[in-house]
Amino acid sequence: MKIAIDAMGGDYAPTEIVKGVELARDKYSEIEFQLYGPLDQIKPLVKNNERIDIINADEVIGMGEEPVRAVMRKKNSSIDLAAKAVKDHQADAFLSAGNTGAILTAGLFIVGRIKGIDRPGLTTTMPVVTRGDQSKFVMLDVGANADSKAFNLYQYAFMGKYYAEQVLKIKNPRIGLLNNGTEPDKGDMLHKHVHKLLSQNDDLNFIGNVESRELLNGAADVVVSDGFTGNAALKGIEGAALSVMNVIKDTIMSGGLRSKLGALMLKKSFKQIGNKMDYSKYGGAVLMGVKAPVVKTHGSSKATTVRNTIGQIKTMVDSKTVNQIVNYFDVHADEMKEIKKNSK
Amino acid sequence: MKIAIDAMGGDYAPTEIVKGVELARDKYSEIEFQLYGPLDQIKPLVKNNERIDIINADEVIGMGEEPVRAVMRKKNSSIDLAAKAVKDHQADAFLSAGNTGAILTAGLFIVGRIKGIDRPGLTTTMPVVTRGDQSKFVMLDVGANADSKAFNLYQYAFMGKYYAEQVLKIKNPRIGLLNNGTEPDKGDMLHKHVHKLLSQNDDLNFIGNVESRELLNGAADVVVSDGFTGNAALKGIEGAALSVMNVIKDTIMSGGLRSKLGALMLKKSFKQIGNKMDYSKYGGAVLMGVKAPVVKTHGSSKATTVRNTIGQIKTMVDSKTVNQIVNYFDVHADEMKEIKKNSK
Repeated sequence: MKIAIDAMGGDYAPTEIVKGVELARDKYSEIEFQLYGPLDQIKPLVKNNERIDIINADEVIGMGEEPVRAVMRKKNSSIDLAAKAVKDHQADAFLSAGNTGAILTAGLFIVGRIKGIDRPGLTTTMPVVTRGDQSKFVMLDVGANADSKAFNLYQYAFMGKYYAEQVLKIKNPRIGLLNNGTEPDKGDMLHKHVHKLLSQNDDLNFIGNVESRELLNGAADVVVSDGFTGNAALKGIEGAALSVMNVIKDTIMSGGLRSKLGALMLKKSFKQIGNKMDYSKYGGAVLMGVKAPVVKTHGSSKATTVRNTIGQIKTMVDSKTVNQIVNYFDVHADEMKEIKKNSK
Repeated sequence: MKIAIDAMGGDYAPTEIVKGVELARDKYSEIEFQLYGPLDQIKPLVKNNERIDIINADEVIGMGEEPVRAVMRKKNSSIDLAAKAVKDHQADAFLSAGNTGAILTAGLFIVGRIKGIDRPGLTTTMPVVTRGDQSKFVMLDVGANADSKAFNLYQYAFMGKYYAEQVLKIKNPRIGLLNNGTEPDKGDMLHKHVHKLLSQNDDLNFIGNVESRELLNGAADVVVSDGFTGNAALKGIEGAALSVMNVIKDTIMSGGLRSKLGALMLKKSFKQIGNKMDYSKYGGAVLMGVKAPVVKTHGSSKATTVRNTIGQIKTMVDSKTVNQIVNYFDVHADEMKEIKKNSK
């Protein structure tokens, strides 16, 4: 298995990316790594080059750059070259902590869409906090497409189903539609239409509408959403969880000796909570619907998150998740065309 | 000042509603109260009927009922009769903790829209948790309209501005557009269009796009959103904050003696946090854009929340917030018509 990695993406690149790759190399003996970046910068950082190929990429796409233009123009960027290696079957998957828009663009236009899939969807894994440490769910689209049609959300359900089954190992995952109420007639015109489409398919364990309030409580294993709403819900959840944790810290720190002593005694509990809320252990966000795993890990990723994300990619490649999606959409091509034709 | 109250709405109705009204009566000597509900049920609950009129309403609209049909058919329900009192100028404002859809329907079709306002927006007040206890922001629409046009969001900005100025007493409030990124070109077609409209108006202190991640940190004083996305963001934030608090409780309770002792020492800090996160003190959600304050307080409201919400209504009536909106839309009628014509 070969993984192409953009060494220049993210707040701590290239140092932490390289460190993470070395951690992963030490953990997974069957993976070969391709590190894309300026040779003179990357080479001195690699302590042991066993199974690590450094491939020179002169250009870097910055976090603030307009993504489509950057990917189109900077053909020698670490993102472009890593994605091209996947397209040319020199690598099985692509990983970056860089400019999200550029990663999505490279995924769409360099790696390429699976035949029959209209819009790939950005897929993220989140914890179910009311259950054990390993309980989780998957949500898509969380921001690849701002404007969506019912047909796009219908297709997300299948991509999410395969991801939940193959990567998260959830049997017969419960598919929920993110909506503004749980009743079947809830939502705007788009979501009413999607509800109807999902209800009619027998290959899906569709459980109906779910509300963003219930996501962390495990309302569904796969949460289907349009990219605009999914993005707002996800960021709202992330922001609120962070804010509450910060308020707790601030209140304790300004609460005098008694309060600080109390916090000391709760140290272990707080660590457990942090561990439960930390979803970087599940790896990065995956652009589902393209011909190979294209994974964006958080911009603030440090070495262990990079290693975890490589573990996630390994599971995806080992389980042949992408091939199964390719097969499903191939076998059901006529049906998909029919639904697309009738979709607003 | 007269306030018409649905005594039969919410999980603890009518007991807690009546209690809350009595608390408000004792606090605000200038308010007269009209309590709508079955006379035989309400009368025994009222301890002192000073400034409290009980008006018989034979029918009750249940929480699960289809709202439009219920409001149209149950002309003698507590919701219909209380709203009708406002329409007929027998009361200055309407309050209920009942079926949200029915309250919105009664607001729209009985109280009625302000001339020139296309779609009233449900408006909620939230805490800014990173600042002092009294810091807050307002967000609309959080669910009155699932399908929205750019023009609707444009109008929400003005309603939110007046609410923030008059009720929250924020001078020259910063208006932000909830979007999937902060850059001006972010969003779907709808939000790109709204951004353009808001940027062009000189009466608004428009600060650009805001993300749901930053709302509790005070990204804007007025957050403008389409009702579908606003609902998802709001419920995501509420759910995550609740989940984190619950995880903390559970972890502490299962953490042994040391952990429980720690929690005991943090009791005061936890209380402060709870107080900061509790936005029931700001009252209920207001349907802005109708001819009088129509306020929905949380279904789980108890007496103190009902009293707080009556305080919020008093501020709205005293400050003549609705009149100011009526005036603005009257003076700018031609301009609004022009923008509506060009709005998708």
